[in-house]
Amino acid sequence: MDVSLSVPSRRAITRELASYAADSRFAALPDNVKREATRAFLNWIGCALGGCREPAVALAAATVAELGGSPHASIIGLQQRTDVASAAFVNCISSSVQAFDDAHLATVTHPSGPAGSALFAFSEKSKVSGEDFLNAFALAIEIECRLSNVLVLPPSQFNVGFYVTGLTAPIGVALALGNLLKLDQQRMNWAIGLGASQSAGFRATHGTMTAHFRPGHAARCGVWAAMLAAKGFTGDDYSLEADKGFFDVFSAQADLALAVDGLGQHFELLSNTYKPYPCGIVIHPTLDACLEIRQACNANAKVAQATLRVHPLALSLTGVRTPGTPLESHVSLYHWAAATLVRGAAGLAEMQQDCIDDPEIATLRARIEAIPDATIGRGEAIVEVMLTNGQTMRSHIRDARGSVARPMTDEELDAKFSAQARMVLAEEKVQALLQLCRGLAKVPDVGKAIGAVLHG
Amino acid sequence: MDVSLSVPSRRAITRELASYAADSRFAALPDNVKREATRAFLNWIGCALGGCREPAVALAAATVAELGGSPHASIIGLQQRTDVASAAFVNCISSSVQAFDDAHLATVTHPSGPAGSALFAFSEKSKVSGEDFLNAFALAIEIECRLSNVLVLPPSQFNVGFYVTGLTAPIGVALALGNLLKLDQQRMNWAIGLGASQSAGFRATHGTMTAHFRPGHAARCGVWAAMLAAKGFTGDDYSLEADKGFFDVFSAQADLALAVDGLGQHFELLSNTYKPYPCGIVIHPTLDACLEIRQACNANAKVAQATLRVHPLALSLTGVRTPGTPLESHVSLYHWAAATLVRGAAGLAEMQQDCIDDPEIATLRARIEAIPDATIGRGEAIVEVMLTNGQTMRSHIRDARGSVARPMTDEELDAKFSAQARMVLAEEKVQALLQLCRGLAKVPDVGKAIGAVLHG
Repeated sequence: MDVSLSVPSRRAITRELASYAADSRFAALPDNVKREATRAFLNWIGCALGGCREPAVALAAATVAELGGSPHASIIGLQQRTDVASAAFVNCISSSVQAFDDAHLATVTHPSGPAGSALFAFSEKSKVSGEDFLNAFALAIEIECRLSNVLVLPPSQFNVGFYVTGLTAPIGVALALGNLLKLDQQRMNWAIGLGASQSAGFRATHGTMTAHFRPGHAARCGVWAAMLAAKGFTGDDYSLEADKGFFDVFSAQADLALAVDGLGQHFELLSNTYKPYPCGIVIHPTLDACLEIRQACNANAKVAQATLRVHPLALSLTGVRTPGTPLESHVSLYHWAAATLVRGAAGLAEMQQDCIDDPEIATLRARIEAIPDATIGRGEAIVEVMLTNGQTMRSHIRDARGSVARPMTDEELDAKFSAQARMVLAEEKVQALLQLCRGLAKVPDVGKAIGAVLHG
Repeated sequence: MDVSLSVPSRRAITRELASYAADSRFAALPDNVKREATRAFLNWIGCALGGCREPAVALAAATVAELGGSPHASIIGLQQRTDVASAAFVNCISSSVQAFDDAHLATVTHPSGPAGSALFAFSEKSKVSGEDFLNAFALAIEIECRLSNVLVLPPSQFNVGFYVTGLTAPIGVALALGNLLKLDQQRMNWAIGLGASQSAGFRATHGTMTAHFRPGHAARCGVWAAMLAAKGFTGDDYSLEADKGFFDVFSAQADLALAVDGLGQHFELLSNTYKPYPCGIVIHPTLDACLEIRQACNANAKVAQATLRVHPLALSLTGVRTPGTPLESHVSLYHWAAATLVRGAAGLAEMQQDCIDDPEIATLRARIEAIPDATIGRGEAIVEVMLTNGQTMRSHIRDARGSVARPMTDEELDAKFSAQARMVLAEEKVQALLQLCRGLAKVPDVGKAIGAVLHG
């Protein structure tokens, strides 16, 4: 019996990914990928602006004031600068904390937060062109979603309790930052292993600040991985596929080819979507149905009770019956259905404490039945409602708004961004930042240009 | 179907541990625990001094120079100060990198590194008495080893590929630092969840610098968890036992009672041991046998071949046949057996490159057969040797030197410490530090007193 170091028994995907990341260039990206990366970045920075005044961000920033480092990067929305890793950490909490960010539905990964936060922080320290930035950003999202596919999709026997973004984002961020740092393949291998060695998180923290700590931590870990690898800090060459390696411990039966087949040809980034509603992505089709019913009702109609038929994952991940706080509302299918049926809206106002505490909404929450149904798709929902006058109404949503089949339009994304950015920026800055992000590929120095708007 | 936040289906061990950590005081510790905590700290700081000149430490310190924060704590052996979390990170790499630290054999956890590194760094920023320090240190080790028992011991079906220290140390460190920060039970709960949300690491990195990154990262994560919780950053109250929580994802069948039964009465810390040899703990009984055989031989005798009969875990974790570097030697049972049989010693010299490259040792490495035998205990080994003159010799070790059954004596620990400390300190400082550590409970300000010796 003999164990050899560095001899994989499975396909050497670590090296394949390292090689792809080292060689990845903007010019080689198809136009639709360039466009989607641009949209994802606009969505990310809007979410970071929208969330930056939340209590979790203030507490994280206060901790960074004690433990963080040199003022190389900004904390969005605050007059505070810190090191690249710590800025990535806090800004990612901002972009995550309203549950309004993005989602790769097949794996429930939220890829842009760690990617955008880490790369933007780095771009404030070191000059990065818009093209290089977007390429690295697309790379991070691509790697995150592909590794998430390996973890989650059959034949994997994945434990749904793991927080997928926390497992894959440190690796995606490490490779993307490695691309900007021009790491060679050897150091890219090490960056992957260092990132994977920090993969962490489970779903039981949902509904608390710690749920948003997790992506921030993933962003920070990715930065450390790339920076250490850049110094020459060594690791294993086969950390993903090795016996006792990343996939062995997190998803042993997984199909590793999902990580690497068609790299540069097929882009999983194109299956990433932007949230139209600030709550768990699996709630969204239900909200479309509730909005449709509400719009079809007489303005004075009141809903007496409702039945939701949803994909089982919607209840597994967001089955909280009675949220006590805005953070808990993110994982309450019942709250969002009730609030939407009462108010005819599903925006940031519906996650505020006054909405959670609204007696009419609380009463309806208790009168909603949610039925998990394995024949219902992840982006699908059927809602049946009885009004107080006895009338019944029904809506069947097959593809949620914002899904791959019904993507947010540019105009919708611009409107979402503007509403979020207005929470902290004057209107002229909102418009300047929107134009800057829409034309990001042409910007010579991303950190400098965006910093001038944010802090100028 | 309904999912409620914060309602555990299993025993609420998170709260029990939080409560224990909040109330833990030095005066309540039995004398043997006080003594063992003192010995563990002496062993830890010796290892940190012995390892602080290794290349991995220099690279980590260089990265910390870019990403680390305010100069609140020292990097041992370097003229560099940084924030508490980053100092914990680097100093723990130092104490780990020679694989000479400590081990809780039942779970192959190395508890002192993250605990000592995090608490010592904190004690340089904030005044901590020797009694409070040792209490927190014992607490961290106790929690780490108990949580490791839950993960690893039956009925758990644990994946041996996970790096146990990386999973449990962030939680142990968070609670110990929480004790020094005087967190109330609510914040202790959150600290546990924040620590557990950073639990990470797998064994495929063995033999590289990343293997030693992992405990350093765990130390740092524990610091962040406690500091964030101290600010009021919220988390789940049941993160360990919850559905989709820590044990659900890492070891679902586990017996949670192992974490909490007999807290304050039975101390798992007393099953932690100090390494007499700088390599994987599962190699140690083989080295005792090799030394016994070597000492019984004529000084000129040469070993022609050897057979090792060992616990299967020894081969699973340290089965590397041909190490290329000192770091790879840590996980090469074959190298250590060969080097010990040739040189009659198993110390730091036997992990150096010249020993790895020694043709006589390389030849013997190839002539060693290692047989995994499930009837052999973890601390047991049988070595049979044939000399070049045809003579055969045999040694059967039932309890390795340094094990719970044959613990390192105070004199042996002092000698180990002194040899390590002499690598970076003048003799008078070595002796002063030894006396200080031996009497640590009486020291009014640990960071100041030790800092005066290290940097004075």
